[in-house]
Amino acid sequence: MKKHLKSLLVPSLAAAVLAASLGAMAQQAPKPEALIKWRQSAFQVISWNCGRIKAAVEGQFNKEDVIKSANAIAAVANAGLVGLFAPGTEQGKGWHDTTAKAEVFKDNKRFTELNASFAKEANELVTIAANGDAAAVKTQFGKLTRTCKACHDDFKSKE
Amino acid sequence: MKKHLKSLLVPSLAAAVLAASLGAMAQQAPKPEALIKWRQSAFQVISWNCGRIKAAVEGQFNKEDVIKSANAIAAVANAGLVGLFAPGTEQGKGWHDTTAKAEVFKDNKRFTELNASFAKEANELVTIAANGDAAAVKTQFGKLTRTCKACHDDFKSKE
Repeated sequence: MKKHLKSLLVPSLAAAVLAASLGAMAQQAPKPEALIKWRQSAFQVISWNCGRIKAAVEGQFNKEDVIKSANAIAAVANAGLVGLFAPGTEQGKGWHDTTAKAEVFKDNKRFTELNASFAKEANELVTIAANGDAAAVKTQFGKLTRTCKACHDDFKSKE
Repeated sequence: MKKHLKSLLVPSLAAAVLAASLGAMAQQAPKPEALIKWRQSAFQVISWNCGRIKAAVEGQFNKEDVIKSANAIAAVANAGLVGLFAPGTEQGKGWHDTTAKAEVFKDNKRFTELNASFAKEANELVTIAANGDAAAVKTQFGKLTRTCKACHDDFKSKE
C-alpha cells in the first residue's frame, strides 16, 4: 500500500514540478534590450499614426484612415507602455541607445500620470474620430500631441 | 475699380496657392526609410504583445494583460500594414535592412489576403479575450500565430 501510494505520488510530484518550471519559464522577464526595443517600436508606431492624422487634418481628410490611426495609438497607449520602462532599462540599447532620462525611473509616479493623460486623450480621439468631424478631430489631436510634448519635455533626452 | 479688384484678388490667390502648397506638403509621401522603420516597429509591437499572451496561456493567466495585448495586436493589424510595403520600399534600411522578400511586391494580392487573415484572427482574439476563458484564448492565439507563420514562410527572409 505504501509503495502503491508512492508510485502514485512521485509522478504527480514530478508533473507538478515540471508544470511549475514551465510556468516560471513562460513568465521569465524579457531582457532589458527587448524592453527598450519594444518601447522604441511602440513610439514609432505612434509616430506613424500621428503622421497620418496630421496629414488628414492639414490636407484631405480621410475618415477611415483617421479611425485606424486613432485606434492604433490608443491601443498602444493602453497596452502598458510604463511597464516597458522597468528597472534595469535605465540605460541600454534597443534599436538605438535609450533616450529615456534618468527622471523616468526616479519619478515613476509622474511618468505614469503623464502616460495616463496620453491614453485618456487617445481614447477620446477614438470616440471623436468615429463621428468623422474634421475640425473636432483637429482639436482633439492637438490635445493628444500636447500630452506627448509634456512627457518628452521632462522624460526624453534629445536624440 | 480694376485696381481695387486686383488688390482684392491677388491676396486671395496668394492665400489659395499657399493653402494648396501646405495641403500638398501635408500629404507628401513619407520616405521609404520611414515606411520600412514603421513596419519593422509595427511587427515588434506585435511581437511584444504576442509574447505577453504566450506567457499568459503557458503560465499564470492574466485577463487584463491578454485584453490589452489582443487590442494592441488587432489595432496594429487593422491600421494598414500593407500600405507600409509601398513601391519603392523593396529594398532599404529602417532599423535594419528590410527582410521583406521580393514576392511581397510581386504578389501583393496574396500578401494583402494574408494580412486580412491575420487581422481577422486578431479581431476574433479581442472578442474571445473579453470573455476571459484561458483555454479559448489559447486556441485562438494558436490560430493567430499560424497566420503569422503563413505570411513569414512566403514573404519574409530569414534575418
